[in-house]
Amino acid sequence: MSDLDLAIRGGTVITASDTIRCDVGIRNGRVALLAEAITDAKKTIDASGLYVMPGGIDSHVHLDQDSGPDITMADGFETGSRSAAAGGNTTIIPFALQVKGSSLRGCVSDYHAKAEGKSLIDYGFHLIVSDPTPTVLNQELPALFADGCTSFKVFMTYDDLVLNDRQLLEVFSVARREQALVMVHAEGYDTIKFMTETLEAAGKTAPYYHGVSRPEVIEREASHRAISHAELIDVPIMIVHVSGREAMEQIRWAKQRGLKVYAETCPQYITLTADDMKGANMDMSGAKYVCSPPPRDTDSQKAIWEGLSQGVFHTFSSDHCPFFYDSPRGKLSPKGQTSFKYVPNGIPGVETRMPILWSEGVAKGRISANEFVALTSTNHAKIYGLYPKKGTIAVGSDADIVLWDPNRKEVLRQEILHHGSDYTPWEGFAVTGYPVMTIARGRVIVEDGKVLGKPGDGQFLKRDKSPYAVPAGA
Amino acid sequence: MSDLDLAIRGGTVITASDTIRCDVGIRNGRVALLAEAITDAKKTIDASGLYVMPGGIDSHVHLDQDSGPDITMADGFETGSRSAAAGGNTTIIPFALQVKGSSLRGCVSDYHAKAEGKSLIDYGFHLIVSDPTPTVLNQELPALFADGCTSFKVFMTYDDLVLNDRQLLEVFSVARREQALVMVHAEGYDTIKFMTETLEAAGKTAPYYHGVSRPEVIEREASHRAISHAELIDVPIMIVHVSGREAMEQIRWAKQRGLKVYAETCPQYITLTADDMKGANMDMSGAKYVCSPPPRDTDSQKAIWEGLSQGVFHTFSSDHCPFFYDSPRGKLSPKGQTSFKYVPNGIPGVETRMPILWSEGVAKGRISANEFVALTSTNHAKIYGLYPKKGTIAVGSDADIVLWDPNRKEVLRQEILHHGSDYTPWEGFAVTGYPVMTIARGRVIVEDGKVLGKPGDGQFLKRDKSPYAVPAGA
Amino acid sequence: MSDLDLAIRGGTVITASDTIRCDVGIRNGRVALLAEAITDAKKTIDASGLYVMPGGIDSHVHLDQDSGPDITMADGFETGSRSAAAGGNTTIIPFALQVKGSSLRGCVSDYHAKAEGKSLIDYGFHLIVSDPTPTVLNQELPALFADGCTSFKVFMTYDDLVLNDRQLLEVFSVARREQALVMVHAEGYDTIKFMTETLEAAGKTAPYYHGVSRPEVIEREASHRAISHAELIDVPIMIVHVSGREAMEQIRWAKQRGLKVYAETCPQYITLTADDMKGANMDMSGAKYVCSPPPRDTDSQKAIWEGLSQGVFHTFSSDHCPFFYDSPRGKLSPKGQTSFKYVPNGIPGVETRMPILWSEGVAKGRISANEFVALTSTNHAKIYGLYPKKGTIAVGSDADIVLWDPNRKEVLRQEILHHGSDYTPWEGFAVTGYPVMTIARGRVIVEDGKVLGKPGDGQFLKRDKSPYAVPAGA
Amino acid sequence: MSDLDLAIRGGTVITASDTIRCDVGIRNGRVALLAEAITDAKKTIDASGLYVMPGGIDSHVHLDQDSGPDITMADGFETGSRSAAAGGNTTIIPFALQVKGSSLRGCVSDYHAKAEGKSLIDYGFHLIVSDPTPTVLNQELPALFADGCTSFKVFMTYDDLVLNDRQLLEVFSVARREQALVMVHAEGYDTIKFMTETLEAAGKTAPYYHGVSRPEVIEREASHRAISHAELIDVPIMIVHVSGREAMEQIRWAKQRGLKVYAETCPQYITLTADDMKGANMDMSGAKYVCSPPPRDTDSQKAIWEGLSQGVFHTFSSDHCPFFYDSPRGKLSPKGQTSFKYVPNGIPGVETRMPILWSEGVAKGRISANEFVALTSTNHAKIYGLYPKKGTIAVGSDADIVLWDPNRKEVLRQEILHHGSDYTPWEGFAVTGYPVMTIARGRVIVEDGKVLGKPGDGQFLKRDKSPYAVPAGA
Ligand SMILES: [Zn+2]
Ligand SMILES: [Zn+2]
Ligand SMILES: [Zn+2]
Ligand SMILES: [Zn+2]
Ligand SMILES: [Zn+2]
Ligand SMILES: [Zn+2]
Ligand SMILES: [Zn+2]
Ligand SMILES: [Zn+2]
Repeated sequence: MSDLDLAIRGGTVITASDTIRCDVGIRNGRVALLAEAITDAKKTIDASGLYVMPGGIDSHVHLDQDSGPDITMADGFETGSRSAAAGGNTTIIPFALQVKGSSLRGCVSDYHAKAEGKSLIDYGFHLIVSDPTPTVLNQELPALFADGCTSFKVFMTYDDLVLNDRQLLEVFSVARREQALVMVHAEGYDTIKFMTETLEAAGKTAPYYHGVSRPEVIEREASHRAISHAELIDVPIMIVHVSGREAMEQIRWAKQRGLKVYAETCPQYITLTADDMKGANMDMSGAKYVCSPPPRDTDSQKAIWEGLSQGVFHTFSSDHCPFFYDSPRGKLSPKGQTSFKYVPNGIPGVETRMPILWSEGVAKGRISANEFVALTSTNHAKIYGLYPKKGTIAVGSDADIVLWDPNRKEVLRQEILHHGSDYTPWEGFAVTGYPVMTIARGRVIVEDGKVLGKPGDGQFLKRDKSPYAVPAGA
Repeated sequence: MSDLDLAIRGGTVITASDTIRCDVGIRNGRVALLAEAITDAKKTIDASGLYVMPGGIDSHVHLDQDSGPDITMADGFETGSRSAAAGGNTTIIPFALQVKGSSLRGCVSDYHAKAEGKSLIDYGFHLIVSDPTPTVLNQELPALFADGCTSFKVFMTYDDLVLNDRQLLEVFSVARREQALVMVHAEGYDTIKFMTETLEAAGKTAPYYHGVSRPEVIEREASHRAISHAELIDVPIMIVHVSGREAMEQIRWAKQRGLKVYAETCPQYITLTADDMKGANMDMSGAKYVCSPPPRDTDSQKAIWEGLSQGVFHTFSSDHCPFFYDSPRGKLSPKGQTSFKYVPNGIPGVETRMPILWSEGVAKGRISANEFVALTSTNHAKIYGLYPKKGTIAVGSDADIVLWDPNRKEVLRQEILHHGSDYTPWEGFAVTGYPVMTIARGRVIVEDGKVLGKPGDGQFLKRDKSPYAVPAGA
Repeated sequence: MSDLDLAIRGGTVITASDTIRCDVGIRNGRVALLAEAITDAKKTIDASGLYVMPGGIDSHVHLDQDSGPDITMADGFETGSRSAAAGGNTTIIPFALQVKGSSLRGCVSDYHAKAEGKSLIDYGFHLIVSDPTPTVLNQELPALFADGCTSFKVFMTYDDLVLNDRQLLEVFSVARREQALVMVHAEGYDTIKFMTETLEAAGKTAPYYHGVSRPEVIEREASHRAISHAELIDVPIMIVHVSGREAMEQIRWAKQRGLKVYAETCPQYITLTADDMKGANMDMSGAKYVCSPPPRDTDSQKAIWEGLSQGVFHTFSSDHCPFFYDSPRGKLSPKGQTSFKYVPNGIPGVETRMPILWSEGVAKGRISANEFVALTSTNHAKIYGLYPKKGTIAVGSDADIVLWDPNRKEVLRQEILHHGSDYTPWEGFAVTGYPVMTIARGRVIVEDGKVLGKPGDGQFLKRDKSPYAVPAGA
Repeated sequence: MSDLDLAIRGGTVITASDTIRCDVGIRNGRVALLAEAITDAKKTIDASGLYVMPGGIDSHVHLDQDSGPDITMADGFETGSRSAAAGGNTTIIPFALQVKGSSLRGCVSDYHAKAEGKSLIDYGFHLIVSDPTPTVLNQELPALFADGCTSFKVFMTYDDLVLNDRQLLEVFSVARREQALVMVHAEGYDTIKFMTETLEAAGKTAPYYHGVSRPEVIEREASHRAISHAELIDVPIMIVHVSGREAMEQIRWAKQRGLKVYAETCPQYITLTADDMKGANMDMSGAKYVCSPPPRDTDSQKAIWEGLSQGVFHTFSSDHCPFFYDSPRGKLSPKGQTSFKYVPNGIPGVETRMPILWSEGVAKGRISANEFVALTSTNHAKIYGLYPKKGTIAVGSDADIVLWDPNRKEVLRQEILHHGSDYTPWEGFAVTGYPVMTIARGRVIVEDGKVLGKPGDGQFLKRDKSPYAVPAGA
């Protein structure tokens, strides 16, 4: 065993099903052995009193995404991946967004260029299909799937991204044929537009009305519609960023009918509410919480917990979509001050995702540590074609590991975070349980909040076809 | 009492709640009194052994509707109303359809002209809004509501009629403001189109594939979408011609949540199945059963009965939409032979509606005679603003009465019917219970199958605002 | 028409389905005719501005029931029926309770003797079967059904009344065979006993703990059990006095499955809550509200309204079970002060039932006036074999009528009521809508709060077999 | 590593969440390490092409149980454990049954004596509480829990075992206080007795009527009752041997409400139906399938699969309860021939459990191999306090391992099985996937059907308190 590069000793290894006291031996960036006591590695890390868990996989982050002429996203691949690593993550899957009218392939090339040499941790790309031309459907998508981008997101809203029902059916058909995993942003286009115009006409333009313009019923309708289309085509789908009871119950209903409908939720839906968007007396500070779908109410938080503990949700992601607050190219843009509809839509969260779920979930007894691992890492790997390379601590898997101190108390604050945004929606939020070391392919990249990893350490991940994308009737 | 024009003696009067042995005295076309024995009327009808029920109101019939350049509808107001009367009906509510690009008001005028002097029984008009321009929304609709057309239908499918979600929200808003009742044809446009093209590409063009092209999931999705839009706007809606379990369960779910969602079903959904469209060995005779939504299967028939007996459905209508079968301008049109999508969409049924529901429902013990009256008459009157003038047998109400022989056995055949079509989908269907006399505003218009009424006897009905259209939050 | 005894002129007649402006002519205690204007009766009552509705039928009242050696029921048939009449009722159906070990027939004879010459209004008897010996099952019950007591109540709790599951199955079988209607008091015996002893052991003996000792889950379990037994035997059942969401949802579930499960609820479950039993600082005044099942919370009130408006409940009864409050033989009995379990179980309410439902239901827009009539009268008559003699205003029916002023405001107070109790649980409760005249078989028995009827005016009603008791599989 | 006793090389290790190509090193009966290649163990087993899974844990088997004076159970601990081992199991948890009137502790001693020196594999005991006297509740149960029997079963039926509701509440309370896990046999006592007597009275005594005497509604009612009692006491429960849709849906409903209700199902409920009990023309051969609850129908099989794939069921056990068929002390006992109610109740199945679930579940694509492991091993260990000693393949865990050939085809036949019964209900049932080696604490005890283990090799397992028994409100 003198050939081991690293041993993690004395910790408790947690996987999606097991909680085991054992040491972890690492060689060439991969887990080489698990044993009771490993004494002869080149380097040893003492994990006594700590949990040794698979590094987080955040399968829903937006980095360096084009956000229109007036807005700048606050994170590129360098700061975004640094923030992720500091939050205990070892893999991210950002989006490569097709600009309408452009080649999807070209867009993906652009994102490769954006990421090249930048990311501290491994990354893949989900595609975003906004313009499903025959070329895209029949040539580009299959080619990109073959290149390891085996999942794509479609939007049921947003002017620049929305697909109509016909287009959804067509991309669903391609996904079925190619066994690609479809991710659905389920909010209704016409309904939001109608609500927005109605609110604007009434002079209701403060950030708070962002939430009013996209109530739960709009998310529920779109979720039901997506489920129905998926049922018609017989294709599995993942409904991302589910925000509340209404959509959650549609998904639970679909699952009970035996449909392959998966679902994701996010920290904002268990910790924030629509009232946060009121800011101070309906001022612009509410913009800090503007994201889509918007945070709901405490009953919906309760519903999301039901979904997390009852298996309705497979993944817990950040939907990290970072903007500046105090900037003319961010939340306080001149146009944003005229109407909520121009406020950049999204919040930073890749670094705080795991502490929030641990603290609110495991520490408060709502979910087990094993469920935490499944929700933050293992299921992401399995669903998005990265397993068993990623997502578990097992012989042969990449040595992507987070050491977790379940007793460490921290108060989330902008000053301790590493993202590009100038604020965090969780400023002052107290958590119990925090990552104390992040190890990526055997290298320590974060230690006690200090980032040791370098841009370019992270590699592009060619992902396999998802076993979760096999049609029920296949 | 010597001033009574007519007495119906010896029968059992059935209303939506009561079953009473009593005589009915009629004066000036209205019910003047109900008493144990009326002996002094100018004329007397012996109803011994018969049920004396409110004349049927068929709130869903299509007459003289423009069906494109190649197709002719088989009934205008004369034959259509004659057939209705022969089937025990005293009121019909056909549609006045707006042609896209045209004034809705102009279209209604056209329908008034088509009906003028033709109908044997009283009639109203539902509007069909296919082009909700600002003028239509803000001027024509309010004016037409004031003129007594207090309900309108919207379509979620059909090239010439479909409204998109934005348009639906706008007309729903007008309905809410004006307390008009919205009727929704809930099938998805893009999904049907996608399915149709897929089937055609596979050479599956026989009438049977009409059903395959619009499966239950498509109807369910549209129903859920309509319900969600109605919930968003807070406006009551009536989902018409519900065909099966999937849509039925959405409606039941909505009702349980306290939403004002009403529903209608039709004879085809309790007696026919998709297999009928197979015809003889997939030949064109299946076209006789082509209607939308299409008939489903026996489980859906069971579901419809659940809905009928459990109060999910308020109305049972015919959706009479009559075409010729053996005609180049009917089901056997040259284009229809090339693809199911060109087969004229609809079946005749205004005359057979009541016998079918009585026989399958009351005679077989699935519903009571009172529920039969509610489903075929009273609820139509209440929902569409005709009550108490129509829909019941009560002092002051119009003397619109059907005498019903619950024991009469009949075999439905084309030769005993009075519609314009050259066939009936229920050829050979045996029923127990049949109308033996129809009385409209005190005049006997049908007696034992012989039509005595005259074109022009029927009057246009200016309908009141529907109490069912009052928003929940009003 | 000079032979009419009475005409009610100018009012609006409301039945379970109709709302009609017409006059009512009465002869020999029955409705002889309904007409637009009746001018020649011997006596005329002006009902202008009033609703003319079927007199209330309260199918759940307890009168002169043996309540053990230490307690006296506050109403016999005279005061009880007077109070009922003053509250707009024309029929009551009290219980004839079998004492364990006694002949059921003998007990019924006793109740006939108690009622003889006392009741101001017509009455029937439900049986209470507490000791289903073979003689009772095979001889007494069939004989009593034939004598017109065609329904019986069984208890799943109370030491003196409880039937075990085996006994329930046996009486259910008899009911099925004889087409008698089973009423079920659905609370669990062992569970309540267990809770009671646990509470007493903890020193929790105040009236408030009555509610804690029988939580909703206990009522739900018993309801589910009764439903299951009924499903096994294939016999319809009526679950009486449903108090909250849990039991209501079981019943709704059963109905949706097509089971013949009917349900009743009561005023206490839409107006009171468990907190009322706290009295002033947990003193004995909470005993005024002690009844079983106990009042719940506001969510359960909401659930009961859902059930009332969605057709889950067929009947709305008082469960009038009157005791004195300030009496050693009433709520303040010495033993009652030692533990809630000795507090006499029941509240007076026969007089306030209809005003409360009208005010909270019709006046507040939750139900229609027609639904009010169905819930307070028509459905009782139909379900308990009194229709069409009772329960509607129709030719040939008994002239049992209440004139109702929908605009009259009243504050419920002990001093305006006519029952034997020395208090009302609704002291100070403001209502809109009140009965202004009660007419029983054509005689005015209450006029503006003044009782004109005499003991003995009321007759025993031999009830028909209930059409609602026909098994599904019959 | 020369100190390793055994290496399993070349296989694919499957746990409840992971599927990993790696070798397993064993020392002192426990897993010492997991590594890519282990070359230096004293002994090596080649597992190429095989799955290396945790040995099966069958948490529901009956061995050497007193079955009355006329009947002999076909398996004691020796044959029973041998059969288990041959079927891939390394742990069993039989029952120690309290005879009414006896000390529970004494009964447990008896079972220890029965097992001592007999079992080939490790075993624990569930208690069966049939007589919950104060001594049992307050002294014996806590002592036995402390001795490592941390779970107990209660029966809601069977003359010798049934607890009434009061007794259930009392033992539930003890379980809550002591954190013991309650297992519930949920069938109704009175209802079965009633049905049985009714059938016997009609001369319906063949084995087939066993199923008719305990229909799904009886199991559903008892399940709902147990759930309600558990909700009242706030104690987790495990409902064992769930047979069909009705009970399954109650459990799913309970889970969705957030109750800690766990459930088990068995091979008979996915492979047999009530018709099997018809035997040949209703002869006694149907007795081979008599068990309780009885097998249902194909829709219930479908429901059970829904429950297995949707997480309603945590464990899949055999409910091995073996009797002889062709024996006067078995299924063909003289009394059994007079009525189904005397037919010994149970079937053998400990050896066929895993092949049946693999073949019908994994091989047919209904569940994953990981879910198979969870359902047959891991969840049993976690729920019954054996984890992580048992139930997984992880460093430090007992080396309880089954090597599984997923491609091996076998036809289940009595001649290849090792149990004491003279028949198997699955005679002729073809399976794909079969165990080829069973390793218990590092020793090979079965190899290719040949049993190498010796009686007495198995040890009694003192089980920990179940983490699943922690009350929701704790
Ligand atoms: Zn999104
Ligand atoms: Zn996103
Ligand atoms: Zn339509
Ligand atoms: Zn139509
Ligand atoms: Zn009661
Ligand atoms: Zn009562
Ligand atoms: Zn059992
Ligand atoms: Zn068992």
